[in-house]
Amino acid sequence: MRIGQVDVNDDFIDLGVGQPAQSLLPADLIREAINHRFSHDGASYLQYGAEQGDEYFREALAQFLTETHGFNASPDRLFVTSGASQALDLIATLWVPSGSVVFVEEPCYHLALRLLRDHRLTIISLPTDEDGLIVEGLEARLVAHRPAMLYLIPTYQNPTGATLSMGRRQSLVELCRRHGVLVVADEVYHCLSYGAPPPPSFGGLVDGGQLLALGSFSKILAPGLRLGWIQGDPAMVQRMVQAGLLDSGGGLNPLNSGVVRSGLELGLLRPHIAGLQATFRSRIRVMDEALRRYLPGASYRLPEGGYFFWLRLPDGVDVTALLPHSEALRVGLRAGVMFSSQGNFGDRVRLSFAWYDEATLVEGIRRLGLAVQRLQGAPSPSTTG
Amino acid sequence: MRIGQVDVNDDFIDLGVGQPAQSLLPADLIREAINHRFSHDGASYLQYGAEQGDEYFREALAQFLTETHGFNASPDRLFVTSGASQALDLIATLWVPSGSVVFVEEPCYHLALRLLRDHRLTIISLPTDEDGLIVEGLEARLVAHRPAMLYLIPTYQNPTGATLSMGRRQSLVELCRRHGVLVVADEVYHCLSYGAPPPPSFGGLVDGGQLLALGSFSKILAPGLRLGWIQGDPAMVQRMVQAGLLDSGGGLNPLNSGVVRSGLELGLLRPHIAGLQATFRSRIRVMDEALRRYLPGASYRLPEGGYFFWLRLPDGVDVTALLPHSEALRVGLRAGVMFSSQGNFGDRVRLSFAWYDEATLVEGIRRLGLAVQRLQGAPSPSTTG
Repeated sequence: MRIGQVDVNDDFIDLGVGQPAQSLLPADLIREAINHRFSHDGASYLQYGAEQGDEYFREALAQFLTETHGFNASPDRLFVTSGASQALDLIATLWVPSGSVVFVEEPCYHLALRLLRDHRLTIISLPTDEDGLIVEGLEARLVAHRPAMLYLIPTYQNPTGATLSMGRRQSLVELCRRHGVLVVADEVYHCLSYGAPPPPSFGGLVDGGQLLALGSFSKILAPGLRLGWIQGDPAMVQRMVQAGLLDSGGGLNPLNSGVVRSGLELGLLRPHIAGLQATFRSRIRVMDEALRRYLPGASYRLPEGGYFFWLRLPDGVDVTALLPHSEALRVGLRAGVMFSSQGNFGDRVRLSFAWYDEATLVEGIRRLGLAVQRLQGAPSPSTTG
Repeated sequence: MRIGQVDVNDDFIDLGVGQPAQSLLPADLIREAINHRFSHDGASYLQYGAEQGDEYFREALAQFLTETHGFNASPDRLFVTSGASQALDLIATLWVPSGSVVFVEEPCYHLALRLLRDHRLTIISLPTDEDGLIVEGLEARLVAHRPAMLYLIPTYQNPTGATLSMGRRQSLVELCRRHGVLVVADEVYHCLSYGAPPPPSFGGLVDGGQLLALGSFSKILAPGLRLGWIQGDPAMVQRMVQAGLLDSGGGLNPLNSGVVRSGLELGLLRPHIAGLQATFRSRIRVMDEALRRYLPGASYRLPEGGYFFWLRLPDGVDVTALLPHSEALRVGLRAGVMFSSQGNFGDRVRLSFAWYDEATLVEGIRRLGLAVQRLQGAPSPSTTG
């Protein structure tokens, strides 16, 4: 009987899983927040909720964003969602008609590609480098393809971990504004920074423009809450408030927003996030050591935030050829090609440090190193296993 | 500061509000269910959830549906949603491309019309009578317009309260199957019956067809949970499971489904629903008496379920002319024309008994009767107020 989305066998180490471990989900914190809410006005949150999201919650959220996202957030620029995926889905329904062109990064979060394809959108990829999306040449592409939307993960990107520089952010927003293109910045990893803070959220740039910044409590509290937010100009927020979905069902997640309101007002979130940062910082260090030891031919940048290593395999190692060996050794990964809409990144893999503890990460990387050795030394796992 | 969707002034009685009163939302029941869940495996529900919805919850829900919906439900034909509106939204995204024709009832739930228009669909209305959608003549319309979907509320319809007869259900499903048209039956009022039980849910007819039946806990437990379900053939369920939205965000409402799983397993739901039935049965009786007394010229059928009276105003009374008088007397209603895509029902109003207690319902109808008297006796409220 399955409750959760991921179902990994105990003897298999799937370094591909990009979700937080159960042990990182703070059941006690959430219990405390529920108790607090129900001992105050919890019953009010059992009702159909205000379409934009409860005002008290938006006020607490604005303060949290002001403290963590590098700009002065305001409740009237916030719209409450049931997670970043649902937010992207709603945005596509309201602003991006079937058949429209959408620009994404190459590589791009693979499940966003799936979601956009469900909306019958034509996806065109834009090149990136270690500072994120390359803005040079963007204007010519905007003119040539006239996209309805540009979707990107500007901070600690999935899968690359890259963060868009401040200069590029401004150029990107300015160009898309001039060409009337909606920018959707998916910022779900913003709070998970392990060194210097990232550039300010796109939330600080929304005024007067077609620009929406997505956030979520999935990575910093608990995915099961299905609670997130969109920052946008009040005119953009009003279009969402007036959607049939909202008018019919009311706010997208009243009860859980009431619970997280308590979590925010009681000051429980930031210490929890600091704990996550410490955990992930340590895992990155341990994983880096293991990679140097067991996969010395691989190259990568040390993650500064988010959940992932974006690894270039040793010269000549192709992921497709590696998979039979890694499977045989009971270790999983996400092939780079999954994140491409053009079949690129055959020599890349995404490894996550969100799901496993340090010892298991090391063992997983040991197995991965062994798989690479076997591939390099022998033609097939059946002759070496 | 607004938490809830509805914001009615104390001195105004809005008989148009189609939502359950705060006093009908069982905070203690939900508190008990939360405590039960967290004292067992609550933490598992903080994780990204299985895309189809937790298996334990689907099993408890199938048993509940078998007991209440007149057929043998099974967990593998259930898909968990965040409410019926979200369900309709997802269905439109996956199966009904922009520009498609959708058939709806005339009159139709007005917010479903809004939601379908957000998907850029062309809406065509089908005639109804006191037994619901008229099936005679449907085949010719299916051939002429080739709709992608037919959306209806077959049981205790919003706004009419009509229930589709068993014979019509079978003919409708058979015709739509033959012409390859997706049928979406919105059954959110099914459990709110106040006399004989309604015909079995469309959930019993889903096998092998393009037929989806929507349900929700909003009317029978608490809207703030944002929890509902879709019944469909396993092949239809699989298409939803494989949507990008689900793959990215996991199940649509894990934590609250865990809470309601406890509510179902502890047997708390059915006594609560019996209480709602008793409350609404009594309100209908009181409202019927008040209507006979204060609005003797109005005609209506006594509701057998759901939330609404669908009232024909006394001869010659037009809603548009009535509104200034009803506003002046501080009583609200929903004009029939809101539920039409063709400007019909100018002599109809929808009155709900879900929001107010009996005394307030009587006072509201007294005011409405007075408004009708003023309209009939005087040209404008300014000369009579």
